[in-house]
Amino acid sequence: MEVHTFLLHLLIILLSARLFAELAVRLQLPSVIGELFAGILLGPSLLGWVSPSEAIKLLAEIGIILLLFEVGLDTDLRRLMRTGMKSFLVAIIGFIAPLLLGFSLAYWLFDLPLLVSLFIGGTLTATSIGITVRVLTDLKRHHSMEGQIVLGAAVVDDILGVILLAMLYEFSVAGEVNVLNAGKVMTFIIAFFFIAPIVAKLLSMVISRLHEKSEIPGLIPTMIVSLVLFFAWLAHAIGAPELLGGFAAGLALSRRFFLPLGVALRSSRKFANRIEQEMKPVIHLFTPIFFVMVGLSLSLHEIDWSSSFIWLFSLSLLFAAVVGKLLGAFVLNVPMRMRWIIGTAMIPRGEVGLVFAELGRVSGILNNEVYAGMIIVIALTTLLPPFVMKWYYARS
Amino acid sequence: MEVHTFLLHLLIILLSARLFAELAVRLQLPSVIGELFAGILLGPSLLGWVSPSEAIKLLAEIGIILLLFEVGLDTDLRRLMRTGMKSFLVAIIGFIAPLLLGFSLAYWLFDLPLLVSLFIGGTLTATSIGITVRVLTDLKRHHSMEGQIVLGAAVVDDILGVILLAMLYEFSVAGEVNVLNAGKVMTFIIAFFFIAPIVAKLLSMVISRLHEKSEIPGLIPTMIVSLVLFFAWLAHAIGAPELLGGFAAGLALSRRFFLPLGVALRSSRKFANRIEQEMKPVIHLFTPIFFVMVGLSLSLHEIDWSSSFIWLFSLSLLFAAVVGKLLGAFVLNVPMRMRWIIGTAMIPRGEVGLVFAELGRVSGILNNEVYAGMIIVIALTTLLPPFVMKWYYARS
Repeated sequence: MEVHTFLLHLLIILLSARLFAELAVRLQLPSVIGELFAGILLGPSLLGWVSPSEAIKLLAEIGIILLLFEVGLDTDLRRLMRTGMKSFLVAIIGFIAPLLLGFSLAYWLFDLPLLVSLFIGGTLTATSIGITVRVLTDLKRHHSMEGQIVLGAAVVDDILGVILLAMLYEFSVAGEVNVLNAGKVMTFIIAFFFIAPIVAKLLSMVISRLHEKSEIPGLIPTMIVSLVLFFAWLAHAIGAPELLGGFAAGLALSRRFFLPLGVALRSSRKFANRIEQEMKPVIHLFTPIFFVMVGLSLSLHEIDWSSSFIWLFSLSLLFAAVVGKLLGAFVLNVPMRMRWIIGTAMIPRGEVGLVFAELGRVSGILNNEVYAGMIIVIALTTLLPPFVMKWYYARS
Repeated sequence: MEVHTFLLHLLIILLSARLFAELAVRLQLPSVIGELFAGILLGPSLLGWVSPSEAIKLLAEIGIILLLFEVGLDTDLRRLMRTGMKSFLVAIIGFIAPLLLGFSLAYWLFDLPLLVSLFIGGTLTATSIGITVRVLTDLKRHHSMEGQIVLGAAVVDDILGVILLAMLYEFSVAGEVNVLNAGKVMTFIIAFFFIAPIVAKLLSMVISRLHEKSEIPGLIPTMIVSLVLFFAWLAHAIGAPELLGGFAAGLALSRRFFLPLGVALRSSRKFANRIEQEMKPVIHLFTPIFFVMVGLSLSLHEIDWSSSFIWLFSLSLLFAAVVGKLLGAFVLNVPMRMRWIIGTAMIPRGEVGLVFAELGRVSGILNNEVYAGMIIVIALTTLLPPFVMKWYYARS
């Protein structure tokens, strides 16, 4: 890719993301809807001006990792723990239900082969943590109780999604699944979430010390981004999604991070403020690239809109995708209205669903028609919930 | 490239750049030397841990464009104009002298073909604006009179370098040069430097207005980076180096930007401060990537250090490279000491020389031995002047 083409693409992505986000806000919609639309407009679905090139994809990855870092920075670990059991329930039920529903519909109603049906169920499992979190932040509800529950559930759900993806992939290649392996990965990830924040906290104290001594400007952005990249890489190394590494680093640097060990690991409020002040511009620069990329990756032009199979298939799976996640919320012992909000917030599939569907297509498991149906389901689960949530909150 | 590999490479680049920059400062050296060394260490020359992948190269390009934006932001246009004639002289003589000296040595002393000799002369022409500016900033002399002269000369010199490269490339492909074309490009570039800052200023006033109205955070980093990318792309479109687009955008947003039209285009000091505050972290994050990339691109391992031709050849050309640039400074009517400083500051060839040499090698004009000799010359002109300048300033 030529340098000037890359500069032009990046320019178009940044400008259109901002333009449509501002328009969305003026239409009383969450700004993330504008960014997703910018991607659909620029991408192969409509104008075809920008294709998701490798360099832009990598910048988008940094964007989502930094967004999760910001979410972690803004999270109160003790409050997250308090709603932990609820999050866990929402995640588990909201993971298993769409998997079973999606699989059953595909296998028994549409007579698809076993592996295909498993992949279809898998595509419906994992909530898009990025879109869910952005919608809640856009609506200024990320600190509410339902926001905490959804955040925790999305994190758990994302971990389960990656493990399932690895297992399905193994099954498709080797014909069997090593459950011991999955258990090992699970143990690693749980250990990661206990150890990573402590290590990140210790490293941030080293950075704070260096900051006082350095004479070269720019220590905070380079060192904090390095820290985030390190934990993202580490998360991947143990089998977890990269963005959860960003989340763990953010949690550790949060002003509200307290350990059982207590006071010893508290860092100065001044340094925390400084980190926030210097990191915000970097985070705000990168994150829209991610949401535009999700829009770019929805190749809606490949869909044969006249096929009745696609309509029937995708609407059935949409039903499974929506009901499955709502079930997760309905087992909670909370007011009815909150159940609806939590369930709806968990619906967006976005990038995780796309990764599933893409892998299914590339490995030849999903044919073009099934793939197209999945893209419709992912697009609708991604684009509709923000409207519905806005409406819930406006009514109350 | 896998996402986690990219994250790891970026992490290693950011961390090692910072580590060696801090070490360099403690050894009383300009920090840029540390970043260049980090690149040589990580790259194929020594450890071979990181190869200059496309994505990293593109980030490095953004880095140098943003650095030039920062330099523009910090430049007083009126002072730059006042030293303009001097800069122009330094640039022209310092461009023609190494071209003629390098060509003559290659053609007559080393009996190389005409086109090869022209490419060799061309590689010696253009000063690396990035390295020169960084050294002056590291030494805190960028606001001095010699700093102004060198900055202006490096800008002019960079424009001449790109035009020469285009002409030589045309000559190597078509066997003749269209001088009219070169004249047209020259006219475009001059027009660009008159019009671009005014347009950028007007756009920045629009951004300032939008900033007051927007409810979504992050308007300044995304819009200012978009502005910089736009002018970088525009600069390329008219035939100038991209980084000069960044410089023009920076000039326009500088607090010290005044037009003959006067007051009407002055923006609020508060907005200028805000831009600086929000852009610094982004700039400081990206720029080290560029200097590490220059180090990565010096493939010193390919050089056959036992060949006597390479030693003779590269030392002769080093002589041409150094004397050529010093000549440019010695025609000035300024104190002797300042001539030495200006001449030395113009010596680094860095990335521009690398582009010339690389193009020569890829198109088959330069064979491996000649290419290796050029790499030595570029490495020495890049790495030695910072030491010498530090020494000049320490003596006085």
